[in-house]
Amino acid sequence: MASSSSSSNSNSPCAACKFLRRKCQPECVFAPYFPPDQPQKFANVHKVFGASNVTKLLNELLPSQREDAVNSLAYEADMRLRDPVYGCVGVISLLQHQLRQLQMDLSCAKSELSNVNSERVSLIGFIPVIRNLQEFVCLYPFNFSVRHTI
Amino acid sequence: MASSSSSSNSNSPCAACKFLRRKCQPECVFAPYFPPDQPQKFANVHKVFGASNVTKLLNELLPSQREDAVNSLAYEADMRLRDPVYGCVGVISLLQHQLRQLQMDLSCAKSELSNVNSERVSLIGFIPVIRNLQEFVCLYPFNFSVRHTI
Repeated sequence: MASSSSSSNSNSPCAACKFLRRKCQPECVFAPYFPPDQPQKFANVHKVFGASNVTKLLNELLPSQREDAVNSLAYEADMRLRDPVYGCVGVISLLQHQLRQLQMDLSCAKSELSNVNSERVSLIGFIPVIRNLQEFVCLYPFNFSVRHTI
Repeated sequence: MASSSSSSNSNSPCAACKFLRRKCQPECVFAPYFPPDQPQKFANVHKVFGASNVTKLLNELLPSQREDAVNSLAYEADMRLRDPVYGCVGVISLLQHQLRQLQMDLSCAKSELSNVNSERVSLIGFIPVIRNLQEFVCLYPFNFSVRHTI
């Protein structure tokens, strides 16, 4: 037993097994995602979700999905510890508020663009008039000075 | 005991106590937020966070904060059960993507507005020219027809 414990320690048990004070087995479901140098990551996930729930969740996923799942759980746990009342939902509310604000800003910008564009189009309608007037003035240039050209 | 159990049943234990098969005490921390007619709400929260973790979290909050906390936990739990890999973090990623898209759309709209506005301003600069030309044509109206006026 002493030898086994010593061997376990020398193999650096994962952060989860170290926290839970148990031997880290080769098939440990936590080991790939909770390295020994990130003890806080597991402590947070355990405090919010519980090691037992996380084990069940990971065992229900494909191995290729587990890293993303652990990282999303770690993010959620971190948010819940920073904001115990709202957690991640506070972040979602903030993003939804920013989204609504941007949608209003975009709607205003589009409306202003539409108005300015209408004015521009009606001003462009005068270009042939100016050209005609300029041609006329060129034909009858006396007593008139035009500096602008189009 | 039979009388107590019967009394507890007739008083409709909260969804949490019913799920956990325990007597719902008057001071039950779950009762105000997990009514008996919403059994799924507690089942989800328990499956994802565990009743023990939720009890600890609620006991650390002010009573006035607990309803919001329970509702945010219920939302997070629901999201995690719908999307076991990303949960709420999937919603956050989606919102962040929409936010970046809207920021780009707004930036494009503002840039277009700036361009159209510059063109509009330079077209407005021609208005005095048109007026001068029109005055000139009024003075020398022969052989020229202008329908536009400003």
